[in-house]
Amino acid sequence: MKVLVVGANGQIGKHLVTFIQESENVEAKAMIRKEEQASFFKELGAETVVVDLEDDIETIAKATEGVDAVVFTAGSGPHTGPDKTVMIDLDGAVKTIEASKAAGVNRYVMISSFDTTREAIQSAPESFAPYVVAKHYADVWLRDTDLDYTIIHPGRLNNEDGTGQVEAASTVERGEIPREDVARVILASLEDQTTIGKEFQVVAGDKSVQDAIQSL
Amino acid sequence: MKVLVVGANGQIGKHLVTFIQESENVEAKAMIRKEEQASFFKELGAETVVVDLEDDIETIAKATEGVDAVVFTAGSGPHTGPDKTVMIDLDGAVKTIEASKAAGVNRYVMISSFDTTREAIQSAPESFAPYVVAKHYADVWLRDTDLDYTIIHPGRLNNEDGTGQVEAASTVERGEIPREDVARVILASLEDQTTIGKEFQVVAGDKSVQDAIQSL
Repeated sequence: MKVLVVGANGQIGKHLVTFIQESENVEAKAMIRKEEQASFFKELGAETVVVDLEDDIETIAKATEGVDAVVFTAGSGPHTGPDKTVMIDLDGAVKTIEASKAAGVNRYVMISSFDTTREAIQSAPESFAPYVVAKHYADVWLRDTDLDYTIIHPGRLNNEDGTGQVEAASTVERGEIPREDVARVILASLEDQTTIGKEFQVVAGDKSVQDAIQSL
Repeated sequence: MKVLVVGANGQIGKHLVTFIQESENVEAKAMIRKEEQASFFKELGAETVVVDLEDDIETIAKATEGVDAVVFTAGSGPHTGPDKTVMIDLDGAVKTIEASKAAGVNRYVMISSFDTTREAIQSAPESFAPYVVAKHYADVWLRDTDLDYTIIHPGRLNNEDGTGQVEAASTVERGEIPREDVARVILASLEDQTTIGKEFQVVAGDKSVQDAIQSL
């Protein structure tokens, strides 16, 4: 299985491409914004493709052709300006969804925010709300497609070493999770067809990633 | 017919409530953000309701109950920050659409931007693109409902006196239009059932508003 990792040069993305390249049956195609980001991925033996999420759907679809799955882990992040939130977290995400459809790639894994419900929008602090709105509409767009999607809602991200131990369910108590473990959860979701059509929150916990995913 | 005017205190909104109150068969309910904005509308004999577009759908639905149509002419405008673009032009619009459904109000007239197509997003200047994205997704959301909608795409707005003469069609050449004439076009659309399910661009031209609307 070949996986296009959108946002490969992000912190989760780099962990993910590393895990994918170490795995037996999966290989990564790293979608990056600048050619100078390529060396990290080339050293891992991963293919790279240079595309900007502000490019059009046709360009993104061309990068998507020939893979078996797309993972969206790009993010302007909640701390960039809301202009990039609109262009990347919402419109960039939707363009990769449309590009997947155009390229005939049915499997799509979205890295969302912990809670993108209407209630979460209403209760979000003012500075964070536009990010929640953007992620909300991207998730809605994906649910509305016929793609074999999985939507992962990780808790508050940190850069601690991963433990490989998580808790995952439709809703879990708010908590943190190392980015490294989010990357493990993504790979496990790609490798487990039972995650298709599901979405779940995930935080640090006491189950192995595989067990947590299987018991969803 | 009673019409909830969302964004009544905006420049188009004030013209619209004025025209509505002068008309025979229509009356306005002005949705405003602050009580101190009410006097303008009370002098016109229009009902007012104080609701913020960042309130929740239930609150907006309550303001929507009992009217026959909703007009969305609120706008953070392209010159406010992109955070408000997300919260008002996208999420605020969607919440009024959902509120209309919840309140059982089937008629909905959206004042969109001149061109909200995918192509317009791709070709927009960087500072304007988030606004086009927000209006794009609000329009998509509306088209996807069963509401009796009309989507109006006015050209570049100016504050000249209206002439009552416009050009309207699915696509017209880019041009300007006085806000006063946009308000006339909205009222004419509300009064002409043949505009249901249609969307059109409109700029200054040489047809009467009624003729232009009828020949769509």
